[in-house]
Amino acid sequence: MRELTIDDIDDLAMGATLLGTGGGGDPYVGKLLVKQAIEDYGPAQVVTVDELPDDGLIMTTAIIGAPTVILEKIPAGTEFRSGIGALAAYLGSDPVALMPIEVGGVNTLVPIATAVEMGIPIVDADGMRRAFPQIEMTVFTLHGLKAAPMSIADEKGNMCVFEANTNQIAESLARAAVVQLGLANAISCYPMTVADVRRGGIHGSMTYCTEVGKRLSQVQRGAPGAWDELLSYTEAALVFSGKVIDIDRRTTEGFARGTVVLEHLDDSVRTLRVEIQNENLIAFEDGEAVVTVPDLLCLLDHESADPITTEGLAFGQRLDVLAMPCAPEWHRDGMFDLVGPRAFGYDIDYVDGWKGRR
Amino acid sequence: MRELTIDDIDDLAMGATLLGTGGGGDPYVGKLLVKQAIEDYGPAQVVTVDELPDDGLIMTTAIIGAPTVILEKIPAGTEFRSGIGALAAYLGSDPVALMPIEVGGVNTLVPIATAVEMGIPIVDADGMRRAFPQIEMTVFTLHGLKAAPMSIADEKGNMCVFEANTNQIAESLARAAVVQLGLANAISCYPMTVADVRRGGIHGSMTYCTEVGKRLSQVQRGAPGAWDELLSYTEAALVFSGKVIDIDRRTTEGFARGTVVLEHLDDSVRTLRVEIQNENLIAFEDGEAVVTVPDLLCLLDHESADPITTEGLAFGQRLDVLAMPCAPEWHRDGMFDLVGPRAFGYDIDYVDGWKGRR
Repeated sequence: MRELTIDDIDDLAMGATLLGTGGGGDPYVGKLLVKQAIEDYGPAQVVTVDELPDDGLIMTTAIIGAPTVILEKIPAGTEFRSGIGALAAYLGSDPVALMPIEVGGVNTLVPIATAVEMGIPIVDADGMRRAFPQIEMTVFTLHGLKAAPMSIADEKGNMCVFEANTNQIAESLARAAVVQLGLANAISCYPMTVADVRRGGIHGSMTYCTEVGKRLSQVQRGAPGAWDELLSYTEAALVFSGKVIDIDRRTTEGFARGTVVLEHLDDSVRTLRVEIQNENLIAFEDGEAVVTVPDLLCLLDHESADPITTEGLAFGQRLDVLAMPCAPEWHRDGMFDLVGPRAFGYDIDYVDGWKGRR
Repeated sequence: MRELTIDDIDDLAMGATLLGTGGGGDPYVGKLLVKQAIEDYGPAQVVTVDELPDDGLIMTTAIIGAPTVILEKIPAGTEFRSGIGALAAYLGSDPVALMPIEVGGVNTLVPIATAVEMGIPIVDADGMRRAFPQIEMTVFTLHGLKAAPMSIADEKGNMCVFEANTNQIAESLARAAVVQLGLANAISCYPMTVADVRRGGIHGSMTYCTEVGKRLSQVQRGAPGAWDELLSYTEAALVFSGKVIDIDRRTTEGFARGTVVLEHLDDSVRTLRVEIQNENLIAFEDGEAVVTVPDLLCLLDHESADPITTEGLAFGQRLDVLAMPCAPEWHRDGMFDLVGPRAFGYDIDYVDGWKGRR
């Protein structure tokens, strides 16, 4: 068990925003929630699954919705505990720890704040080590673990508990509910035993995220060699540097969808189009896919190296585009069916030609 | 307490189909379910609230969806008990009786079959004494009684339990879920104490429905004076007899919506347009509203006097159009806001000019 410090939280939030690949929500409110929780209830305790009893219940909490809405509809803070409480009551069992379901902006921070409030530890693991827009898109699904029973709650006392035969049905039921409840709600899904998380989870993802954030902070402070160190640690490649010349972004079917087009800073003939569904999914250079899900596609401000979330995109921004391999835990049977380009409706194959570039 | 006979069930189904005003689903499958249940488990016991303990729990069950789909997606039969079971578990209490939530085709019969299976009585009461397309549209809402907690279940084990602050939110959450689950599912809503049903329900509606069905059967058998007796018992008026010259029907947003246009049998200049949202809502004669919700608008085959459900409408049918006053229990503050024409999006006032006509 280790305690999270305020510095850790800044690094964690920074790393989570980068690894969120545009999604997971702006971490600013999440940082405030965590800092307030620590002030009120004491430090956050981070544990590994090995420190918990095998049959203990691990629960998750997150914001589900469209980042474009999450940005404006600030969480009340009460919906996370009420969603967890409703699901725990339904399960007839209380959690021994919470866990983030994804690494991404606010969704890494909200479970920490909630765990602190509940006086239980947070597990250093998750189900994606990045953000994905749909709840079935976890390594847990690849292990046959179920997203349901799950709960959706809003801040007004509206609440849903779902049973679903498949994680795809879980996604469709959850999405339909959040469309009705304002597109920014609390979800608690994938209630699992510690043993299930040990078997199916991505371990150390919170630590990884903090380490990534620490290195990105170094880049932002202009530390010598920091950029290379960041690329080396994350095995990332810089695939494009360009200026935003077009943005098409709409909130539809419960998601923020859109495209952003960049014109290369040094060669105005080259353009890169990034397709978005809450997260950055695929980059096409002059019509050809150069980076695809499940690899990470991260946009950073060209000057400040601030990670840019999908809702923060703006015309004229100068951006660096990083590609990063997904966590090795994704490499299992069914990965491409679940989180490859076709899972998002793109009739193209996964490409890895960017790997090894710098 | 009285037992329902097989004859009662035929009359009840007939009455429920007429009073369902086009909605509530075709009763054929419902009749089979009831008859099978009686064969397997013994007769159905009908009770009034006065025969039940005041603090006993009364639960409901019904099919929710679009009649166009309900017609084709036959219930498995298991979804009703699983929806009730899930909600009962959530409430931590078992029902002393079931009650139909509406009078309308299959939705009057399904609760009877389910009560028989569960070995509990069915209450001679409901929340509409007609069918309405949305679950907030009950006299219970006018009494401040809540549709939630409620459950939605399908036959595959998918299941939702909802808490909702208002009955309108309950409707929107339920509708969103059934759109995902195939548009014909089991709902259990308005769990209430016997005392609440006594205060807020429409009593004797099952008996009324059976009496209406008995009289309609007489009409169908050509008994002398039967038509007048039906109109007199229901205070109905024949407002139009016409041939279907146009039908526009689509399944959208979780409902069957459409219009049917009739040309008068004796005067081809006169046309009647009936607007449909699962149920027949409003009749316009030559552009002017002549019958509106919450009054009942019933279509019957001109020759056989068979009640025609919205999904049974067909080009060239010759139909009689009956208007009927809604149950007196509807006449409370808020009635028109809840079930008047504007509640369905029509910018017109309630009209009662048809009353007293024959």
